[in-house]
Amino acid sequence: MYRLHIANKNYSSWSLRPWLLMRELEIPFEERLTPFDADSSWVSFRAFSPTGKVPCLIDEELAVWDSLAIVEYLAERHAGVWPEQSQPRAWARSACAEMHSGFGALRSECPMNCGLRVRVTSPSTPLQHDLARLEELWQQGLEAFGGPFLAGAAFSAVDAFFAPVAFRVQGFDLALGPGAHAYVERLLALPGMRDWYRAALAEPWRDEPHERETLSAGERLADHRHAP
Amino acid sequence: MYRLHIANKNYSSWSLRPWLLMRELEIPFEERLTPFDADSSWVSFRAFSPTGKVPCLIDEELAVWDSLAIVEYLAERHAGVWPEQSQPRAWARSACAEMHSGFGALRSECPMNCGLRVRVTSPSTPLQHDLARLEELWQQGLEAFGGPFLAGAAFSAVDAFFAPVAFRVQGFDLALGPGAHAYVERLLALPGMRDWYRAALAEPWRDEPHERETLSAGERLADHRHAP
Repeated sequence: MYRLHIANKNYSSWSLRPWLLMRELEIPFEERLTPFDADSSWVSFRAFSPTGKVPCLIDEELAVWDSLAIVEYLAERHAGVWPEQSQPRAWARSACAEMHSGFGALRSECPMNCGLRVRVTSPSTPLQHDLARLEELWQQGLEAFGGPFLAGAAFSAVDAFFAPVAFRVQGFDLALGPGAHAYVERLLALPGMRDWYRAALAEPWRDEPHERETLSAGERLADHRHAP
Repeated sequence: MYRLHIANKNYSSWSLRPWLLMRELEIPFEERLTPFDADSSWVSFRAFSPTGKVPCLIDEELAVWDSLAIVEYLAERHAGVWPEQSQPRAWARSACAEMHSGFGALRSECPMNCGLRVRVTSPSTPLQHDLARLEELWQQGLEAFGGPFLAGAAFSAVDAFFAPVAFRVQGFDLALGPGAHAYVERLLALPGMRDWYRAALAEPWRDEPHERETLSAGERLADHRHAP
Protein backbone atom coordinates (compact mmCIF):
# COMPACT_ATOMS: atom_id res chain seq x y z
CA MET A 1 0.00 0.00 0.00
CA TYR A 2 1.09 3.56 -0.62
CA ARG A 3 2.48 5.47 2.34
CA LEU A 4 1.91 9.23 2.26
CA HIS A 5 4.10 11.35 4.51
CA ILE A 6 2.46 14.60 5.53
CA ALA A 7 2.88 17.28 8.21
CA ASN A 8 0.39 19.04 10.50
CA LYS A 9 -3.08 19.13 8.96
CA ASN A 10 -3.62 22.56 10.46
CA TYR A 11 -0.72 24.09 8.53
CA SER A 12 0.53 21.92 5.71
CA SER A 13 -1.15 23.07 2.52
CA TRP A 14 1.18 21.02 0.34
CA SER A 15 0.30 17.86 2.29
CA LEU A 16 -3.40 18.47 1.82
CA ARG A 17 -3.22 18.30 -1.98
CA PRO A 18 -2.27 14.63 -2.58
CA TRP A 19 -4.02 13.54 0.63
CA LEU A 20 -7.34 14.95 -0.56
CA LEU A 21 -6.89 13.62 -4.07
CA MET A 22 -6.28 10.08 -2.83
CA ARG A 23 -9.07 10.34 -0.31
CA GLU A 24 -11.67 11.59 -2.82
CA LEU A 25 -10.60 9.08 -5.49
CA GLU A 26 -10.64 6.27 -2.90
CA ILE A 27 -7.02 5.32 -3.51
CA PRO A 28 -5.98 3.40 -0.40
CA PHE A 29 -2.96 4.73 1.49
CA GLU A 30 -1.41 4.75 4.90
CA GLU A 31 -1.04 8.24 6.32
CA ARG A 32 2.17 9.06 8.20
CA LEU A 33 2.04 12.45 9.93
CA THR A 34 5.23 14.08 11.25
CA PRO A 35 4.58 17.44 12.90
CA PHE A 36 6.65 20.50 12.01
CA ASP A 37 9.52 21.18 14.34
CA ALA A 38 10.40 24.89 14.46
CA ASP A 39 14.06 23.98 14.92
CA SER A 40 14.60 21.04 12.63
CA SER A 41 11.75 19.98 10.36
CA TRP A 42 14.27 19.64 7.57
CA VAL A 43 16.32 17.17 9.59
CA SER A 44 13.40 15.04 10.75
CA PHE A 45 11.69 15.08 7.33
CA ARG A 46 14.91 14.00 5.64
CA ALA A 47 14.39 10.59 7.24
CA PHE A 48 11.72 9.87 4.64
CA SER A 49 11.89 12.68 2.05
CA PRO A 50 14.95 13.53 -0.11
CA THR A 51 14.13 17.24 -0.01
CA GLY A 52 13.38 17.39 3.70
CA LYS A 53 9.89 18.54 2.71
CA VAL A 54 6.40 17.08 2.67
CA PRO A 55 4.45 15.55 1.06
CA CYS A 56 6.36 12.46 0.02
CA LEU A 57 4.73 9.32 -1.35
CA ILE A 58 6.40 5.97 -0.78
CA ASP A 59 5.46 3.09 -3.08
CA GLU A 60 7.38 0.00 -2.04
CA GLU A 61 11.00 1.24 -2.19
CA LEU A 62 10.31 4.20 -4.43
CA ALA A 63 10.05 7.74 -3.04
CA VAL A 64 8.07 10.27 -5.07
CA TRP A 65 8.60 13.68 -3.59
CA ASP A 66 6.68 16.86 -4.39
CA SER A 67 2.91 17.15 -4.75
CA LEU A 68 2.90 17.55 -8.52
CA ALA A 69 5.13 14.54 -9.18
CA ILE A 70 2.91 12.49 -6.84
CA VAL A 71 -0.14 13.53 -8.86
CA GLU A 72 1.46 12.41 -12.14
CA TYR A 73 2.64 9.17 -10.54
CA LEU A 74 -0.90 8.41 -9.40
CA ALA A 75 -2.33 9.46 -12.78
CA GLU A 76 -0.41 6.64 -14.44
CA ARG A 77 -1.97 4.12 -12.07
CA HIS A 78 -5.50 5.32 -11.24
CA ALA A 79 -8.41 6.73 -13.23
CA GLY A 80 -9.83 10.14 -12.43
CA VAL A 81 -6.68 11.98 -11.40
CA TRP A 82 -6.94 14.17 -14.51
CA PRO A 83 -9.96 14.78 -16.75
CA GLU A 84 -10.33 12.24 -19.54
CA GLN A 85 -10.54 14.80 -22.34
CA SER A 86 -7.34 16.30 -23.62
CA GLN A 87 -8.37 19.97 -23.46
CA PRO A 88 -9.52 20.15 -19.82
CA ARG A 89 -6.55 17.98 -18.90
CA ALA A 90 -4.11 20.47 -20.47
CA TRP A 91 -5.94 23.31 -18.73
CA ALA A 92 -5.90 21.49 -15.37
CA ARG A 93 -2.18 20.79 -15.63
CA SER A 94 -1.46 24.42 -16.51
CA ALA A 95 -3.52 25.62 -13.55
CA CYS A 96 -1.82 23.19 -11.15
CA ALA A 97 1.62 24.23 -12.38
CA GLU A 98 0.67 27.89 -12.01
CA MET A 99 -0.32 27.23 -8.39
CA HIS A 100 2.81 25.16 -7.84
CA SER A 101 5.22 28.00 -8.57
CA GLY A 102 2.95 31.01 -8.33
CA PHE A 103 0.43 32.82 -6.15
CA GLY A 104 3.34 33.78 -3.92
CA ALA A 105 1.58 36.65 -2.15
CA LEU A 106 -1.47 34.54 -1.35
CA ARG A 107 0.72 31.77 0.00
CA SER A 108 2.99 33.96 2.12
CA GLU A 109 0.50 36.61 3.30
CA CYS A 110 -2.37 34.21 3.97
CA PRO A 111 -0.73 30.96 5.08
CA MET A 112 -3.02 28.00 5.64
CA ASN A 113 -3.93 27.78 9.31
CA CYS A 114 -7.22 25.89 9.31
CA GLY A 115 -8.37 26.77 12.81
CA LEU A 116 -7.63 30.49 12.97
CA ARG A 117 -9.78 33.37 11.78
CA VAL A 118 -7.94 36.55 10.89
CA ARG A 119 -9.21 39.73 9.23
CA VAL A 120 -6.77 40.96 6.59
CA THR A 121 -6.48 44.64 7.45
CA SER A 122 -4.66 45.91 4.37
CA PRO A 123 -4.25 43.44 1.50
CA SER A 124 -1.05 44.20 -0.41
CA THR A 125 -1.10 44.94 -4.13
CA PRO A 126 0.49 41.53 -4.94
CA LEU A 127 -2.20 39.82 -2.85
CA GLN A 128 -4.94 41.70 -4.69
CA HIS A 129 -3.29 40.72 -7.96
CA ASP A 130 -3.21 37.05 -6.88
CA LEU A 131 -6.87 37.11 -5.88
CA ALA A 132 -7.89 38.70 -9.17
CA ARG A 133 -5.95 36.08 -11.11
CA LEU A 134 -7.42 33.29 -8.95
CA GLU A 135 -10.92 34.48 -9.68
CA GLU A 136 -10.23 34.80 -13.40
CA LEU A 137 -8.69 31.31 -13.53
CA TRP A 138 -11.51 29.63 -11.61
CA GLN A 139 -14.17 31.39 -13.67
CA GLN A 140 -12.47 30.28 -16.86
CA GLY A 141 -12.40 26.64 -15.78
CA LEU A 142 -15.91 26.58 -14.38
CA GLU A 143 -17.33 28.17 -17.53
CA ALA A 144 -15.27 26.33 -20.13
CA PHE A 145 -15.85 22.84 -18.75
CA GLY A 146 -19.31 23.23 -17.23
CA GLY A 147 -18.51 22.75 -13.53
CA PRO A 148 -19.24 22.17 -10.74
CA PHE A 149 -15.52 21.38 -10.41
CA LEU A 150 -12.72 23.33 -12.07
CA ALA A 151 -12.15 20.98 -14.98
CA GLY A 152 -15.66 19.61 -15.36
CA ALA A 153 -18.20 17.41 -13.63
CA ALA A 154 -15.75 15.37 -11.56
CA PHE A 155 -13.37 16.35 -8.79
CA SER A 156 -9.81 16.00 -10.09
CA ALA A 157 -6.23 16.92 -9.23
CA VAL A 158 -6.72 20.57 -10.10
CA ASP A 159 -9.39 20.87 -7.39
CA ALA A 160 -7.05 19.18 -4.93
CA PHE A 161 -4.40 21.74 -5.84
CA PHE A 162 -6.69 24.65 -5.01
CA ALA A 163 -8.20 23.04 -1.89
CA PRO A 164 -5.81 24.86 0.47
CA VAL A 165 -7.07 28.13 -1.02
CA ALA A 166 -10.54 27.22 0.25
CA PHE A 167 -9.20 27.10 3.83
CA ARG A 168 -7.40 30.40 3.22
CA VAL A 169 -10.55 32.10 1.93
CA GLN A 170 -12.43 30.80 4.98
CA GLY A 171 -9.70 31.71 7.46
CA PHE A 172 -8.94 35.20 6.18
CA ASP A 173 -12.44 35.97 4.86
CA LEU A 174 -10.95 36.89 1.49
CA ALA A 175 -13.15 38.89 -0.85
CA LEU A 176 -14.11 36.92 -3.95
CA GLY A 177 -17.12 37.07 -6.26
CA PRO A 178 -20.17 34.80 -5.84
CA GLY A 179 -19.01 32.18 -8.37
CA ALA A 180 -15.67 31.77 -6.66
CA HIS A 181 -17.29 31.71 -3.21
CA ALA A 182 -19.72 29.00 -4.29
CA TYR A 183 -16.76 26.95 -5.53
CA VAL A 184 -14.99 27.43 -2.19
CA GLU A 185 -18.11 26.16 -0.42
CA ARG A 186 -18.19 23.08 -2.66
CA LEU A 187 -14.59 22.33 -1.78
CA LEU A 188 -15.16 22.81 1.96
CA ALA A 189 -18.16 20.45 1.81
CA LEU A 190 -16.19 17.52 0.37
CA PRO A 191 -16.04 14.60 2.83
CA GLY A 192 -12.25 14.61 2.67
CA MET A 193 -12.07 18.33 3.40
CA ARG A 194 -14.40 17.98 6.38
CA ASP A 195 -12.32 15.13 7.81
CA TRP A 196 -9.07 17.05 7.27
CA TYR A 197 -10.55 20.13 8.96
CA ARG A 198 -11.81 18.17 11.97
CA ALA A 199 -8.40 16.55 12.41
CA ALA A 200 -6.66 19.92 12.04
CA LEU A 201 -8.75 21.43 14.85
CA ALA A 202 -7.95 18.48 17.12
CA GLU A 203 -4.17 18.65 16.67
CA PRO A 204 -2.26 19.44 19.86
CA TRP A 205 0.74 21.08 18.14
CA ARG A 206 1.32 24.79 17.69
CA ASP A 207 4.20 25.85 15.48
CA GLU A 208 5.35 29.37 16.36
CA PRO A 209 6.66 30.40 12.91
CA HIS A 210 3.34 29.38 11.32
CA GLU A 211 1.39 31.15 14.07
CA ARG A 212 3.37 34.37 13.69
CA GLU A 213 3.00 34.35 9.91
CA THR A 214 -0.75 33.90 10.17
CA LEU A 215 -1.24 36.63 12.73
CA SER A 216 0.93 39.09 10.81
CA ALA A 217 -1.79 39.13 8.12
CA GLY A 218 -4.13 41.25 10.23
CA GLU A 219 -6.48 41.18 13.19
CA ARG A 220 -7.04 37.92 15.07
CA LEU A 221 -10.75 37.16 15.29
CA ALA A 222 -11.10 33.59 16.57
CA ASP A 223 -9.36 30.29 17.13
CA HIS A 224 -11.52 27.23 16.57
CA ARG A 225 -8.85 24.71 17.56
CA HIS A 226 -9.26 22.56 20.62
CA ALA A 227 -7.03 23.48 23.54
CA PRO A 228 -3.72 21.62 23.13
CA MET B 1 2.54 23.56 -35.83
CA TYR B 2 3.18 24.38 -32.21
CA ARG B 3 3.96 27.99 -31.40
CA LEU B 4 6.22 28.52 -28.38
CA HIS B 5 6.23 31.95 -26.80
CA ILE B 6 9.47 32.78 -25.03
CA ALA B 7 11.32 35.86 -23.77
CA ASN B 8 14.97 36.98 -24.08
CA LYS B 9 17.28 34.03 -24.50
CA ASN B 10 19.88 35.81 -22.42
CA TYR B 11 17.64 35.96 -19.34
CA SER B 12 14.63 33.68 -19.58
CA SER B 13 15.51 30.44 -17.83
CA TRP B 14 11.90 29.27 -17.86
CA SER B 15 11.71 29.74 -21.63
CA LEU B 16 14.84 27.69 -22.17
CA ARG B 17 13.36 24.54 -20.64
CA PRO B 18 10.61 23.65 -23.16
CA TRP B 19 12.56 25.27 -26.03
CA LEU B 20 15.55 22.98 -25.43
CA LEU B 21 13.37 19.92 -24.92
CA MET B 22 11.57 20.44 -28.24
CA ARG B 23 14.79 21.28 -30.02
CA GLU B 24 16.65 18.19 -28.76
CA LEU B 25 13.70 15.88 -29.39
CA GLU B 26 13.23 17.40 -32.86
CA ILE B 27 9.65 18.41 -32.19
CA PRO B 28 8.90 21.11 -34.80
CA PHE B 29 7.73 24.47 -33.46
CA GLU B 30 7.60 28.10 -34.38
CA GLU B 31 9.48 30.29 -31.91
CA ARG B 32 7.92 33.62 -30.94
CA LEU B 33 10.22 35.79 -28.86
CA THR B 34 8.89 38.83 -26.97
CA PRO B 35 11.59 40.67 -25.03
CA PHE B 36 11.09 41.62 -21.40
CA ASP B 37 9.89 45.15 -20.84
CA ALA B 38 11.01 46.51 -17.48
CA ASP B 39 7.75 48.47 -17.19
CA SER B 40 5.13 46.13 -18.54
CA SER B 41 6.18 42.58 -19.42
CA TRP B 42 3.05 41.37 -17.71
CA VAL B 43 0.86 43.51 -19.95
CA SER B 44 2.57 42.58 -23.22
CA PHE B 45 2.83 38.87 -22.32
CA ARG B 46 -0.86 38.75 -21.43
CA ALA B 47 -1.56 39.08 -25.17
CA PHE B 48 -0.61 35.42 -25.56
CA SER B 49 -0.25 33.96 -22.04
CA PRO B 50 -3.03 33.84 -19.40
CA THR B 51 -0.54 34.38 -16.58
CA GLY B 52 1.39 37.17 -18.29
CA LYS B 53 4.44 34.92 -18.05
CA VAL B 54 6.53 32.86 -20.43
CA PRO B 55 6.84 30.20 -21.69
CA CYS B 56 3.46 29.52 -23.22
CA LEU B 57 2.80 26.85 -25.83
CA ILE B 58 0.01 27.37 -28.34
CA ASP B 59 -1.39 24.31 -30.10
CA GLU B 60 -4.12 25.43 -32.52
CA GLU B 61 -6.49 27.34 -30.22
CA LEU B 62 -5.23 25.79 -26.98
CA ALA B 63 -2.84 27.64 -24.68
CA VAL B 64 -0.68 25.56 -22.35
CA TRP B 65 1.03 27.86 -19.93
CA ASP B 66 3.86 26.97 -17.53
CA SER B 67 6.92 24.92 -18.39
CA LEU B 68 5.87 21.82 -16.47
CA ALA B 69 2.40 21.65 -17.99
CA ILE B 70 3.98 22.08 -21.44
CA VAL B 71 6.26 19.12 -20.72
CA GLU B 72 3.34 16.89 -19.76
CA TYR B 73 1.35 18.06 -22.78
CA LEU B 74 4.22 17.12 -25.07
CA ALA B 75 4.78 13.82 -23.24
CA GLU B 76 1.29 12.72 -24.27
CA ARG B 77 2.13 13.37 -27.93
CA HIS B 78 5.84 12.62 -28.44
CA ALA B 79 8.22 9.85 -27.37
CA GLY B 80 11.28 10.63 -25.30
CA VAL B 81 9.97 13.46 -23.14
CA TRP B 82 10.19 11.22 -20.07
CA PRO B 83 12.20 8.01 -19.60
CA GLU B 84 10.35 4.89 -20.70
CA GLN B 85 10.85 3.01 -17.43
CA SER B 86 8.56 3.83 -14.56
CA GLN B 87 11.21 4.32 -11.87
CA PRO B 88 13.45 6.86 -13.64
CA ARG B 89 10.29 8.59 -14.88
CA ALA B 90 9.00 9.02 -11.31
CA TRP B 91 12.43 10.24 -10.25
CA ALA B 92 12.63 12.69 -13.17
CA ARG B 93 9.21 14.11 -12.43
CA SER B 94 10.10 14.56 -8.76
CA ALA B 95 13.33 16.33 -9.68
CA CYS B 96 11.55 18.61 -12.17
CA ALA B 97 8.87 19.49 -9.64
CA GLU B 98 11.54 20.19 -7.01
CA MET B 99 13.22 22.61 -9.44
CA HIS B 100 9.86 24.11 -10.37
CA SER B 101 9.04 25.31 -6.87
CA GLY B 102 12.44 25.11 -5.18
CA PHE B 103 16.08 26.14 -5.41
CA GLY B 104 14.93 29.66 -4.58
CA ALA B 105 18.33 30.96 -3.48
CA LEU B 106 20.04 29.66 -6.62
CA ARG B 107 17.38 31.22 -8.79
CA SER B 108 17.31 34.62 -7.08
CA GLU B 109 20.99 35.01 -6.18
CA CYS B 110 22.39 33.63 -9.45
CA PRO B 111 19.86 34.61 -12.11
CA MET B 112 20.44 33.30 -15.59
CA ASN B 113 22.28 35.91 -17.64
CA CYS B 114 24.03 33.88 -20.32
CA GLY B 115 26.56 36.47 -21.45
CA LEU B 116 27.82 37.82 -18.13
CA ARG B 117 30.55 36.43 -15.91
CA VAL B 118 30.33 37.32 -12.23
CA ARG B 119 32.33 36.04 -9.29
CA VAL B 120 30.09 35.27 -6.30
CA THR B 121 31.93 36.97 -3.48
CA SER B 122 30.06 35.56 -0.50
CA PRO B 123 27.57 32.77 -1.25
CA SER B 124 24.72 32.89 1.27
CA THR B 125 23.87 29.90 3.45
CA PRO B 126 20.67 29.20 1.46
CA LEU B 127 22.70 29.27 -1.77
CA GLN B 128 25.22 26.82 -0.34
CA HIS B 129 22.33 24.65 0.78
CA ASP B 130 20.84 24.73 -2.75
CA LEU B 131 24.16 23.83 -4.33
CA ALA B 132 24.66 20.91 -1.94
CA ARG B 133 21.18 19.62 -2.71
CA LEU B 134 21.72 20.09 -6.44
CA GLU B 135 24.88 18.05 -6.30
CA GLU B 136 23.25 15.33 -4.23
CA LEU B 137 20.28 15.15 -6.60
CA TRP B 138 22.37 15.02 -9.77
CA GLN B 139 24.69 12.40 -8.31
CA GLN B 140 21.71 10.27 -7.32
CA GLY B 141 20.25 10.38 -10.83
CA LEU B 142 23.54 9.84 -12.64
CA GLU B 143 24.40 6.86 -10.44
CA ALA B 144 20.98 5.24 -10.21
CA PHE B 145 20.20 5.33 -13.92
CA GLY B 146 23.70 5.02 -15.40
CA GLY B 147 24.06 8.44 -17.09
CA PRO B 148 25.27 10.29 -18.99
CA PHE B 149 21.99 12.18 -18.56
CA LEU B 150 20.12 12.60 -15.31
CA ALA B 151 17.57 9.87 -15.87
CA GLY B 152 19.61 7.53 -18.03
CA ALA B 153 21.18 7.25 -21.45
CA ALA B 154 18.90 9.70 -23.23
CA PHE B 155 18.37 13.43 -22.80
CA SER B 156 14.88 13.97 -21.35
CA ALA B 157 12.71 16.65 -19.75
CA VAL B 158 14.60 16.53 -16.46
CA ASP B 159 17.80 17.58 -18.23
CA ALA B 160 15.91 20.40 -19.92
CA PHE B 161 14.70 21.51 -16.49
CA PHE B 162 18.24 21.78 -15.15
CA ALA B 163 19.73 23.30 -18.34
CA PRO B 164 19.46 26.87 -17.00
CA VAL B 165 21.57 25.76 -14.03
CA ALA B 166 24.36 24.94 -16.49
CA PHE B 167 24.40 28.57 -17.67
CA ARG B 168 24.35 29.70 -14.03
CA VAL B 169 27.28 27.46 -13.08
CA GLN B 170 29.19 28.83 -16.08
CA GLY B 171 28.24 32.44 -15.47
CA PHE B 172 28.91 32.55 -11.73
CA ASP B 173 31.66 29.92 -11.69
CA LEU B 174 29.80 28.00 -9.00
CA ALA B 175 31.77 25.43 -7.05
CA LEU B 176 30.55 21.88 -7.71
CA GLY B 177 32.29 18.52 -7.61
CA PRO B 178 33.80 16.88 -10.72
CA GLY B 179 30.77 14.68 -11.48
CA ALA B 180 28.43 17.67 -11.45
CA HIS B 181 30.85 19.77 -13.48
CA ALA B 182 31.13 17.06 -16.12
CA TYR B 183 27.33 16.98 -16.34
CA VAL B 184 27.25 20.76 -16.76
CA GLU B 185 29.75 20.46 -19.62
CA ARG B 186 27.58 17.81 -21.27
CA LEU B 187 24.58 20.13 -21.10
CA LEU B 188 26.52 23.12 -22.47
CA ALA B 189 27.75 20.99 -25.40
CA LEU B 190 24.26 20.05 -26.61
CA PRO B 191 23.55 21.52 -30.06
CA GLY B 192 20.43 23.24 -28.72
CA MET B 193 22.33 24.81 -25.82
CA ARG B 194 25.04 26.10 -28.16
CA ASP B 195 22.45 27.66 -30.46
CA TRP B 196 20.58 29.22 -27.54
CA TYR B 197 23.82 30.64 -26.14
CA ARG B 198 24.88 32.12 -29.49
CA ALA B 199 21.48 33.75 -29.92
CA ALA B 200 21.59 35.07 -26.34
CA LEU B 201 24.93 36.77 -26.93
CA ALA B 202 23.62 38.39 -30.11
CA GLU B 203 20.49 39.89 -28.51
CA PRO B 204 20.39 43.69 -28.57
CA TRP B 205 18.21 44.08 -25.46
CA ARG B 206 19.38 44.81 -21.94
CA ASP B 207 16.83 44.60 -19.14
CA GLU B 208 17.89 46.70 -16.18
CA PRO B 209 16.20 44.67 -13.41
CA HIS B 210 17.86 41.48 -14.71
CA GLU B 211 21.22 43.27 -15.04
CA ARG B 212 21.04 44.66 -11.51
CA GLU B 213 20.07 41.27 -10.05
CA THR B 214 22.98 39.58 -11.79
CA LEU B 215 25.55 42.14 -10.72
CA SER B 216 24.35 42.12 -7.11
CA ALA B 217 25.69 38.55 -6.86
CA GLY B 218 29.32 39.68 -6.72
CA GLU B 219 32.14 41.03 -8.82
CA ARG B 220 31.64 41.59 -12.57
CA LEU B 221 34.36 39.81 -14.52
CA ALA B 222 33.33 39.89 -18.19
CA ASP B 223 30.48 40.45 -20.62
CA HIS B 224 30.56 38.22 -23.69
CA ARG B 225 27.52 39.76 -25.34
CA HIS B 226 27.83 41.66 -28.60
CA ALA B 227 27.45 45.42 -28.30
CA PRO B 228 23.74 46.23 -28.59
